[in-house]
Amino acid sequence: MGAGDDCAVLEYGRTGYYQLFKTDCLVQGVHYFPDTEPELVGRKALARAISDIAAMGGWPTQAVVTLVLSPNYQLGYAKSIYTGLSGLAREFGVSVVGGETARPATSTGRTAMISVSLLGLVEKGRCVMRSGGREGDHIYVTGSLGGSLKGKHLQFLPRVWEARWLSEHYKPSAMMDLSDGVAKDLPRLAKQSCLGYQMVYQRIPRSPGCELRQALNDGEDYELMFTVAPERAEAMKGEWLKTFPTLPLTNIGWLCPKDQSMGSELDQGGWDHFQVSVSS
Amino acid sequence: MGAGDDCAVLEYGRTGYYQLFKTDCLVQGVHYFPDTEPELVGRKALARAISDIAAMGGWPTQAVVTLVLSPNYQLGYAKSIYTGLSGLAREFGVSVVGGETARPATSTGRTAMISVSLLGLVEKGRCVMRSGGREGDHIYVTGSLGGSLKGKHLQFLPRVWEARWLSEHYKPSAMMDLSDGVAKDLPRLAKQSCLGYQMVYQRIPRSPGCELRQALNDGEDYELMFTVAPERAEAMKGEWLKTFPTLPLTNIGWLCPKDQSMGSELDQGGWDHFQVSVSS
Repeated sequence: MGAGDDCAVLEYGRTGYYQLFKTDCLVQGVHYFPDTEPELVGRKALARAISDIAAMGGWPTQAVVTLVLSPNYQLGYAKSIYTGLSGLAREFGVSVVGGETARPATSTGRTAMISVSLLGLVEKGRCVMRSGGREGDHIYVTGSLGGSLKGKHLQFLPRVWEARWLSEHYKPSAMMDLSDGVAKDLPRLAKQSCLGYQMVYQRIPRSPGCELRQALNDGEDYELMFTVAPERAEAMKGEWLKTFPTLPLTNIGWLCPKDQSMGSELDQGGWDHFQVSVSS
Repeated sequence: MGAGDDCAVLEYGRTGYYQLFKTDCLVQGVHYFPDTEPELVGRKALARAISDIAAMGGWPTQAVVTLVLSPNYQLGYAKSIYTGLSGLAREFGVSVVGGETARPATSTGRTAMISVSLLGLVEKGRCVMRSGGREGDHIYVTGSLGGSLKGKHLQFLPRVWEARWLSEHYKPSAMMDLSDGVAKDLPRLAKQSCLGYQMVYQRIPRSPGCELRQALNDGEDYELMFTVAPERAEAMKGEWLKTFPTLPLTNIGWLCPKDQSMGSELDQGGWDHFQVSVSS
C-alpha cells in the first residue's frame, strides 16, 4: 500500500511483519526558524518520521539522512544537526545507516533542508491504517492540542510506546498522527475510512493558553488520533489511565455515515460559520 | 552494515536476502543545469540510486521521493520530474510508494532539489561489498569513461542486469559503481579492501573524444567497477562477451599490497606529477 496513509506498507519477505517506509523533509523558514538550535532541528526531522511509524502501530528501525546546507553554515552547525538526530535515534533504537550532505547551487542566503527516510516494522496483525474506521467508533486523541509552535514542535516525544500498547491490547480500527491539526486530520481519517464524523468541540483537549480555534488548527501536535469500537472503549480508557497516567486521552467524537458528517465547514476553512455553529 | 559502501545492507527478516537502502539527492546547479529537461532530472535522480543498488549485486524494489521546488516553478515542471522518474521506475520494477513536495523559505531565485530513497534486495550469497577484494584480483570496468556531462549523466542505464549476471555466475570479490571518476573511486574500493592497486593507465577505456585525464576524473560514468580472482577472469571475460556483446569490459589493473600501490599521487590530485609518470 502506498500513498494515503502515514507510511507506505510493504511486504517484508515471508515473515509475520510488514515493513513501514516514510520520508519526511524539514525546510528552514518553513518547518523551523533560522535561529532554532540545530540539535533541535535534527531531532525534529527524525521525530516527525518516527511519529508516522508510530501511527501505524509499528516501531522504527533504520534511517538515512540527507542534509542540504548552503556553504555559509559552519561545519559545527551540520554536526549539531546530526547530534540532535542521533540522540533521538538512540532513544528509539533507530540505526542511522547512511546519508549525504549536499550544498545548494547559490552561495548567497542561508538554505537549509534536512530529509529523513525511515524504515520500521509492525506485526501484520497490529498494523493500523487510517482506513479501518467503522461507523460508531469512538474517536480519541492523546495529549492536548494547539500552541505547538511555542516549543512542543521541537521537543515532542513520538508516541511509539503508546501506539504499541494500543495495537497490542486494544487495536484501534484506524489511527494517524496529528500533524496538520485535528480540523484537517480528522476529515482525512474519516475519508480514508469512507465515513463522516461528529466532533464534539467542547471536548477537544486544549493546551494551556489555547483557544479552541488554535487546538483545532495550529497543527504540529504529533499526538495520536485513533478510533475504537464503542463496546471496547470503556475498558480501553480504564487501562490507559493506569498505564499512561500522565498522558490524557480524550474521546472527541465518533465516526458516522458520510451524509451525517457535521465537519464539512471545517474542511473549507469556514471559520466564521463555525464560530456560530459550535455553540449550537 | 552502514556507511562506506554503495548502500546500507540490512537484515531482511529471517529470509535468504539482505535489504539494501540508499538515499541520494540531486541539487539544481550542482548535479544538473537549470535548463535540463525536468523529465531527465527525475530520471537521473532515480537512476543514480538504482546504480548503487546494482553495485551491490541487488535489484531495486521501492522508492520514496522528496521534491523541494521554489514557488516560481510551474506545476508542470514538478509533474515532468515525476514523469521522468516514474518512467525509469517502471523499467526497473520500482514502486514509488511515497514522498512529498516542499518549498524553500525564500521565494526568490529558483531552488530545486530532489531526494530519492530507494530499497532493494539481494540474495545473501550474492551481495557484493567494496571490501571483499583480494590481492592479485583483476580490476574491471564496464563501458567507457569520461565526458559524461555531454549527455550520458542524464541518460545512462543503471547496470542492474550486468551486475545481476556477474553476481550469479562470476561473483566479484568487490564491486562499486563509478560515480566520481575511477581516479577517486578505485582508491576507495582498494581502501575498503585494505589493499593497494596498480592501474594500467593505457588500458583505461576512454569515451570518444576524451583524454585519459577526463576518463579518470570526469566522473558520473555510472559504470560498474569490480574485481575478480585471476583464475576466473579469463572465463568470465569470455562469457561476458557472449552475454553483453555491445558493452565493453576492460581489465584496468589489479589489487596489490598497500605499500606497492602506485596510485597515491591520484589521491592527492597531483596531476602534474601524474602527467609525467603516466607515460613512463
